[in-house]
Amino acid sequence: MTAGHHTDTGVFVCLEGGEGAGKSTQAKALAGWLTEVGHTVRLTFEPGDTAVGRELRRIVLDPATGDLSARTEALLYAADKAEHVDTVVRPALERGEVVVTDRYVDSSLAYQGSGGLDRAGLEAMLRWSTDDLRPHLTVLLDLEPRQGLGRFTERDRIEQRDLDYHARVRQVLLDLADDDPAHYLVLDARLPVDEVTAAIRARVEPLLGQAG
Amino acid sequence: MTAGHHTDTGVFVCLEGGEGAGKSTQAKALAGWLTEVGHTVRLTFEPGDTAVGRELRRIVLDPATGDLSARTEALLYAADKAEHVDTVVRPALERGEVVVTDRYVDSSLAYQGSGGLDRAGLEAMLRWSTDDLRPHLTVLLDLEPRQGLGRFTERDRIEQRDLDYHARVRQVLLDLADDDPAHYLVLDARLPVDEVTAAIRARVEPLLGQAG
Repeated sequence: MTAGHHTDTGVFVCLEGGEGAGKSTQAKALAGWLTEVGHTVRLTFEPGDTAVGRELRRIVLDPATGDLSARTEALLYAADKAEHVDTVVRPALERGEVVVTDRYVDSSLAYQGSGGLDRAGLEAMLRWSTDDLRPHLTVLLDLEPRQGLGRFTERDRIEQRDLDYHARVRQVLLDLADDDPAHYLVLDARLPVDEVTAAIRARVEPLLGQAG
Repeated sequence: MTAGHHTDTGVFVCLEGGEGAGKSTQAKALAGWLTEVGHTVRLTFEPGDTAVGRELRRIVLDPATGDLSARTEALLYAADKAEHVDTVVRPALERGEVVVTDRYVDSSLAYQGSGGLDRAGLEAMLRWSTDDLRPHLTVLLDLEPRQGLGRFTERDRIEQRDLDYHARVRQVLLDLADDDPAHYLVLDARLPVDEVTAAIRARVEPLLGQAG
């Protein structure tokens, strides 16, 4: 088992934040810049960036599946993470690549942990699922929930939950960043896109010493 | 969270054992007798006795899904257990019924734990998945693997594994019984079916005091 942050030879960067905070835009911008300056980049996302992950995402989001128990849903997302780490993230890091993921463990802690599950048990389960592999840097694009949800027209099971729930999600993400400032960058998602992009680059650049 | 064995008002009995040990035969016989003597029985099984469980079982066993990572597979089985406990087992126990399940947590500890995963982390994950709900009695139908597998013609991913693996599975099941004799009954699966049935009844009968 690999514990903590200093793993493999690549660099592992995660984008986190609520719906509509601009994670995928910034992930693409970061990956584009990394490629330009000569790194091999693996741009990926959770949940669902493996064959089994796509099936699990379908099961969780399909209204026909009915309401899954909170633990069942958390375990399905954890299975997606396990497969993602074991078949996508860690192999890329072992090749010395830069992995940029749109969402990771923090999302599960925030979304499933705000749904009534005990936080400590949930976190232990998620750390086991991901073999305790942690990003070198997590960028949190922070946004007041009302603003983020306003940008969405898609209505899936998560979007239908209320604003109180999304406020709890936001607080969990902020608390995770507060607890470990050396591995987090918190940015106001309302800033102009280019400013956010520049701030992320400035923080990622010093991490790239040995990455391929 | 409900810890330990003394939960709800029903009685929870589990059948465990390798392939071909006669679990489903004995589970049916036990359920039939319990019904005859006036109890409400919920006969169930893992993996797969829920809508999402059937989908997960299909994903794990379908050769087209490819080889899942060991952690992914363990988490999918755990998701099946979570849904089974939350939507089938615990509701029946809360109604005072007798629940008889063909396989439960011990099977995952034995099968997934014999595949290279760390046992302590796996067990903590499984206990969390099932909200630490444990059977009042687990009946282990013990059989030397070569004999059990000889009865099978079906070839799925599990059956293709080698006999050494099944020997490790058997030892995990025996060790679990050794560690907690008050909640286990170990029977030689080569005994005549009626003798096994009678031995199980004799051990279950004293548990039925308050069950509906």
